[in-house]
Amino acid sequence: MTSVEEGALHQSWAWPTGATKVLAVIGDPVEHSLSPILHNAAIKNLGLDIVYIALRVPKEEIGLAIAAIRTFGLKGCSVTMPHKERVIAYLDGITERAQILQSVNVVYRDSMGKLIGDSNDGGALLNSLKLDHGVSVRDKAVVVLGSGGAGRAITLALAQGGAASVHIVSRNLETAARAADLAGDIGFVGDYSDVESADIVINATPVGMANTSLAGLSPIPPERMHEGQFIYDIVYHPNVTPLMEMASAKGVANAGGLGMLVHLAAVAFTMWTGHEAPIDEMRSAAKAEALRRL
Amino acid sequence: MTSVEEGALHQSWAWPTGATKVLAVIGDPVEHSLSPILHNAAIKNLGLDIVYIALRVPKEEIGLAIAAIRTFGLKGCSVTMPHKERVIAYLDGITERAQILQSVNVVYRDSMGKLIGDSNDGGALLNSLKLDHGVSVRDKAVVVLGSGGAGRAITLALAQGGAASVHIVSRNLETAARAADLAGDIGFVGDYSDVESADIVINATPVGMANTSLAGLSPIPPERMHEGQFIYDIVYHPNVTPLMEMASAKGVANAGGLGMLVHLAAVAFTMWTGHEAPIDEMRSAAKAEALRRL
Repeated sequence: MTSVEEGALHQSWAWPTGATKVLAVIGDPVEHSLSPILHNAAIKNLGLDIVYIALRVPKEEIGLAIAAIRTFGLKGCSVTMPHKERVIAYLDGITERAQILQSVNVVYRDSMGKLIGDSNDGGALLNSLKLDHGVSVRDKAVVVLGSGGAGRAITLALAQGGAASVHIVSRNLETAARAADLAGDIGFVGDYSDVESADIVINATPVGMANTSLAGLSPIPPERMHEGQFIYDIVYHPNVTPLMEMASAKGVANAGGLGMLVHLAAVAFTMWTGHEAPIDEMRSAAKAEALRRL
Repeated sequence: MTSVEEGALHQSWAWPTGATKVLAVIGDPVEHSLSPILHNAAIKNLGLDIVYIALRVPKEEIGLAIAAIRTFGLKGCSVTMPHKERVIAYLDGITERAQILQSVNVVYRDSMGKLIGDSNDGGALLNSLKLDHGVSVRDKAVVVLGSGGAGRAITLALAQGGAASVHIVSRNLETAARAADLAGDIGFVGDYSDVESADIVINATPVGMANTSLAGLSPIPPERMHEGQFIYDIVYHPNVTPLMEMASAKGVANAGGLGMLVHLAAVAFTMWTGHEAPIDEMRSAAKAEALRRL
């Protein structure tokens, strides 16, 4: 993967060539994935001879897709719905956190060329909090809204990142209890009253997501939040969610999920290419696309 | 596959996106294939949201590669060495000429979505002769030098195109006889003396190809050629081969293999995309790349 002067390669009117390396996201549906946009923006910024494509893979064909990734010699791939759990059986290994979560969102090759699955959503959230917003989770009381895949990944990362407590608030008490278990001694099933005493509140539900039945809604009412808290909404579409609007109106620091998405991609990008990811370029591309879609 | 204003899409700094369709060439090696350059030049010229990539597929994994083409929903692929024959077993069907030649260089989907293999090298040569050089093969005496895959494909196309006779000149008399059989009553095993009486002489051997042990050589000596003939060298690297130089020096009309390559890609492009191929753009891209490689 050679590097050339920025722009020269990709503005060539006959690129990609036969020598261009390929990276991919596999999922179904996949056409609205932001991953190609984030990665191709980074690739172009660094002038790498790589192209990142989206491959639609029906649920039952994930095994074949991974076999193809091997055969085609790809350095790895991003994995999205509905393959995050089923993909595990077809990999050579998974990281400890992917094992605990039974979920994989990125596949890379180790030094032996083996395909290893990792789950870096939680780590990406912590990176975004720290690097984009200067917020450390260490010794903080955190509430996670939602006990699905994202909520679980975030809960595990919070515990590993040294949070003082993690309360999981979910309508499904059973999955909330299982998510809380991921945080061990500091994990609890919580309720909305815990939001008030939290330092950090993370929305890991799809509430507020544009173009869904949950659009326009906030997962918590404004009276639960107060100045001094930090509210992170992993929803990134729209750019400013109802939860964020509410928080801003009350003077509560907040952020949307674009940063998490960017840091998630950045870590994968570095694993695949060996290059430090151009975070700002990736963020600009994601923002532009998110605006374009509104 | 929507069409947008030329350049706008592909000069975007975050293209391809999740919605971009994928086409591919499969082979091993594949990094020096001109196909991505030809197709991506055409795609950009028309502003289509498609990216054409090269996938290296080891010989024994062609079955898996075709399964992946199906799974990923690709509209088709180009097929190059070493898969041209072995790929047949994994397709849903092949055209009559591919059946006769037992060779496939392009795969497309029919109206039912089935994967059909075709062999269009011979047709591409006839297109290039006719469209680029105004030369019809009808009722002509033709000599084909070489009885390998290219020689066979060309011989079949010449017979179907109405040539008066096709003499195959090859050091291997056995494969020459088998190639001649493809032309039926008008096919013959010939020798170098047949070159002198031919209207059209086609070099289908790799003699003269740059960066090989055959570089700098001509498959026939200058005394065999004369004005009034047309000499077509399917070798395209270098742009002007020793055979072409010799012909030009004697005032004999001649052409190199780039046009065949362009017409071959053009037909595939139209089958996959439904768009007429921008021949001139493809030719310019191929020429530029060929020059770059010298």
